[in-house]
Amino acid sequence: MSDYRAPVKDMRFVMDELAGFKELAQFPEYADATPDLADAILDEAAKFTGEVLAPLNRVGDKEGCKLTPNGVTTPPGWKEAYKAFCEAGWNGVSSPADFGGQGLPDTLGVAVKEMVCSANLSFSLGPLLTTGAVEALITCASDELKAIYLEKMITGEWTGTMNLTEPQAGSDLALIRSRAEPQADGTYRVFGQKIFITYGDHDMTDNIVHLVLARLPDAPAGVKGISMFLVPKFLVNADGSLGARNDAYCVSIEHKLGIHASPTCVMAYGDNGGAVGYLLGQANRGLEYMFIMMNEARLGVGLQGIALGERAYQQALGYARERKQGRDAVTGEALVTLDKHPDIRRMLMLMKCRVEACRAMAYYASGLLDRAHATVNPENRQKSLFLAEFMIPIVKGGGTEMGIDVTSLGIQIYGGMGFIEETGAAQHWRDSRITTIYEGTTGIQANDLLFRKLMRDQGATAKVVFGEVYATAKALGASGKPELQAIGQRLGVALKAWTDASEWLAANAKTGLSGVLTAAVPYLHLAVTVCGGWFMGKAALAAAGYLDKGEGDQAFYRAKIATARFYADQMLPQATAYGETVRAGDAALAAIGDEVF
Amino acid sequence: MSDYRAPVKDMRFVMDELAGFKELAQFPEYADATPDLADAILDEAAKFTGEVLAPLNRVGDKEGCKLTPNGVTTPPGWKEAYKAFCEAGWNGVSSPADFGGQGLPDTLGVAVKEMVCSANLSFSLGPLLTTGAVEALITCASDELKAIYLEKMITGEWTGTMNLTEPQAGSDLALIRSRAEPQADGTYRVFGQKIFITYGDHDMTDNIVHLVLARLPDAPAGVKGISMFLVPKFLVNADGSLGARNDAYCVSIEHKLGIHASPTCVMAYGDNGGAVGYLLGQANRGLEYMFIMMNEARLGVGLQGIALGERAYQQALGYARERKQGRDAVTGEALVTLDKHPDIRRMLMLMKCRVEACRAMAYYASGLLDRAHATVNPENRQKSLFLAEFMIPIVKGGGTEMGIDVTSLGIQIYGGMGFIEETGAAQHWRDSRITTIYEGTTGIQANDLLFRKLMRDQGATAKVVFGEVYATAKALGASGKPELQAIGQRLGVALKAWTDASEWLAANAKTGLSGVLTAAVPYLHLAVTVCGGWFMGKAALAAAGYLDKGEGDQAFYRAKIATARFYADQMLPQATAYGETVRAGDAALAAIGDEVF
Repeated sequence: MSDYRAPVKDMRFVMDELAGFKELAQFPEYADATPDLADAILDEAAKFTGEVLAPLNRVGDKEGCKLTPNGVTTPPGWKEAYKAFCEAGWNGVSSPADFGGQGLPDTLGVAVKEMVCSANLSFSLGPLLTTGAVEALITCASDELKAIYLEKMITGEWTGTMNLTEPQAGSDLALIRSRAEPQADGTYRVFGQKIFITYGDHDMTDNIVHLVLARLPDAPAGVKGISMFLVPKFLVNADGSLGARNDAYCVSIEHKLGIHASPTCVMAYGDNGGAVGYLLGQANRGLEYMFIMMNEARLGVGLQGIALGERAYQQALGYARERKQGRDAVTGEALVTLDKHPDIRRMLMLMKCRVEACRAMAYYASGLLDRAHATVNPENRQKSLFLAEFMIPIVKGGGTEMGIDVTSLGIQIYGGMGFIEETGAAQHWRDSRITTIYEGTTGIQANDLLFRKLMRDQGATAKVVFGEVYATAKALGASGKPELQAIGQRLGVALKAWTDASEWLAANAKTGLSGVLTAAVPYLHLAVTVCGGWFMGKAALAAAGYLDKGEGDQAFYRAKIATARFYADQMLPQATAYGETVRAGDAALAAIGDEVF
Repeated sequence: MSDYRAPVKDMRFVMDELAGFKELAQFPEYADATPDLADAILDEAAKFTGEVLAPLNRVGDKEGCKLTPNGVTTPPGWKEAYKAFCEAGWNGVSSPADFGGQGLPDTLGVAVKEMVCSANLSFSLGPLLTTGAVEALITCASDELKAIYLEKMITGEWTGTMNLTEPQAGSDLALIRSRAEPQADGTYRVFGQKIFITYGDHDMTDNIVHLVLARLPDAPAGVKGISMFLVPKFLVNADGSLGARNDAYCVSIEHKLGIHASPTCVMAYGDNGGAVGYLLGQANRGLEYMFIMMNEARLGVGLQGIALGERAYQQALGYARERKQGRDAVTGEALVTLDKHPDIRRMLMLMKCRVEACRAMAYYASGLLDRAHATVNPENRQKSLFLAEFMIPIVKGGGTEMGIDVTSLGIQIYGGMGFIEETGAAQHWRDSRITTIYEGTTGIQANDLLFRKLMRDQGATAKVVFGEVYATAKALGASGKPELQAIGQRLGVALKAWTDASEWLAANAKTGLSGVLTAAVPYLHLAVTVCGGWFMGKAALAAAGYLDKGEGDQAFYRAKIATARFYADQMLPQATAYGETVRAGDAALAAIGDEVF
């Protein structure tokens, strides 16, 4: 077991210097989001996550959830922690104040969410899904349904779920078969089986609000015939009290590689006559509504990778500072702690720089979403939204793949002890493994980046990003400081690889589709690598400014520059390699048939 | 659960074309190792591992081993499988015929071992450790001890263990505290606690032979004061029958991330008056004897990564060919199997090419060990041995890191189903995670490559390898075939990165040790990447030759060229990136102190 101490200093640095948090207060609706408020909230959240949620992480892994005849039970301590979480208002940090949320910008909410994920990923998933369901209701529920459900979900009194996947329909939602039959009273009867339903059942709240994708009798085939229904576990009376048990049951839970304390349910709807459901928004637009939530949800999963990387880093660092083993190869000193060995330092620094790079991307994207949300001018609004949407597959794909790598390094630093479950290092790695799969696999993120985000505006948004990266590289080069110039030089080379690859993809998208699709994931890695260098470069520039002025925590700023330099040396050279791989396309695969495998 | 079908065709190809198996028969002691014998043995081994060992892999993971008052019990079916394994003679495939082994070359034995590891890694560890102990006895045991123990261990009637690690002494064996007190009768009493002892206790055999590192009363401090003792679980009477229970007990077993069916024991020696032990070889030379076994053991662990990668590949391929999901992006066909999607093909091909590249390295190293073993001329003998020893950290570090990556891709291809333990894909990934740690971490392999293998002969052995890689690149370039020339071009660039990095390291080893140590693991990755390209290039050349002649399985040879090309496009560009990282040294780290972490 390990402690978790939220990296508040780095979070604040990223919010202020890279995600534009300070400027958000200019928007009327974020006028309250002052630096003082941010400090107060982050300190409280750090305390809560470190003291209440983090200690439950190991017991959650060990005990997991259980399916009993009365439904799913959560591990010891879960119910109490959830109650405390809701009472402190953490469930609705960024939800609108109109319905009982705190209405804070995502740029602040993202830091709180990172803390919750670091402390206890399994715990965090309940609130994450509820927040997604809340957004769906805000988007498309009738005022009547909003009045009944929204506030209780924002406070966390009730949780929400998202029911998409069916046994035959995973990444391909066109295959959904669940159906909904209209009733005379305007409600529907929902029938079908859904799998992989996170927190589909549990014992933490009195009611659970399921959002279920299903087809109406006359619906067109494929994704254009999917509607969204609200199906509560217990029906709700007009006065808000709970009525009859609905025909929506968890029939089994999965035995998973990780996130053991997050119940992954098989849900049966309508096995006993039909589950009462309410149509959300218009018929056949269910998938569209889902996609509205997608940005936030994907950003949230990217954040999970970052959060696990941070937790693993803290734990590995703690061990490396305590465990004595081997002689210092440079000084010759006998029996030094692990953190004195260059290869251990390399691994720690690699963990640190990759986590910080991805954190910056995620918070930056949150800042863009806040701007898109608060901006009135439609053109500016769309600019922010497109930029955010461009970044989101990069954050999701990059944060989650990084999380797997970094938690693996955490095990490696522990050596043999890392393979023993009691140590806790292995749990982060196991937990991380789902993050590159759910909310769209890395392959799906890559296709999204390529075909929607890069190509939809003929590369216009990408060019904005390229311009920003170029400006950062140029500023680093013009700094007159060798350590910054070294970063700038590598960033410039990496950017060239990205722009070249982008041009190659655009040129081949029509005539060489198969090669472009083969190149999609290497292209995503390329984008992630360069964006990481971009933000670490910006961070180094900001840190150098404070060092020049002699302001603030000098050791922190020196560390930031060293971390950026390390990222540049260890990660940025890979951009060129990914670029070459992208441009190789599928030359090898095109020559052969299925029999080669 | 998944089937395992040994890739006999690729194994034979690698043995014959890349590891020089055919030429081994020129040595008198390998005169029997004909192609026909190899075919017969591989077919039998494929059958046994596929039918007997592979089906037990999942139950082993699920049930694990248990510590009872009567010692450790293995999972259901284990005992019977072990008996069948020994009766078929698989335990002593490469052990000397003088003591009941089959005396076959390692170049053949390595293929059998790969099969056993693929089928059931947890099972394979017992025989692996026994083989190591057998080698130790051959190296340094008295004739008397040899007569009592060797044959029973080679047939597998008794198993062997290696006892190195103690709670305070992991990678650093200088810290070993276990002690041995000489007795009047020439035996010793051994006292101490050992941890992470693989198959330290189990219920498959009547006796277990522990090799234990401990200090004599007058031993010098550090690694030069460690002796090796044979400590049997049951003492052995003069007639070979079992005598009294020795004071050597398993006191607990670890709860691990993977290899659940391989009991990892805490062993207590001498808690009840002292465990009877016999000194092996000379006093204070224990570590030296251990190092003699190290080559074989490290090669064996590299092979584990390859074996798990192969198993994961087969399983993912099977699923990808069955599971229908999504539309074919190129042809537009509705609802195709996963293996039609370019990104899935990319992942499958990446798994395949990386496994095949590492397999070639491992078998090549085995071939060199066979040559070193059979060659009479001391100079030639040393040349083969040095070359083998140069390759071994590359095989160990490369095979195991690849194994983790490739088993992770296996999960990714399954999507959400990969995260469910029943699928079995996750087990390979969990099992693989120990392989970069035990028998020397990746960091230790990197230091071994750098400071022992690269530098001990001022780069002479490395230059032999560089020359071979260069010759391969040149032959590819001169082939007149565009697909081979493309491989040759990339291989040439990658080789340049390797030689440049080697020169940089040699130039900085004295004055910039800390930077060189920081560069060690990136340098190992660089070496692995280039060697993979070297062997895939050689494979492509051989395959092209058969295609030109119209001989053999044409589809197999076409696939080999495509696989080599894929490796060249996807993996070789990384060599340049690793090279740049090596030459960056620790510029970033040198600027800062411990407070940055």
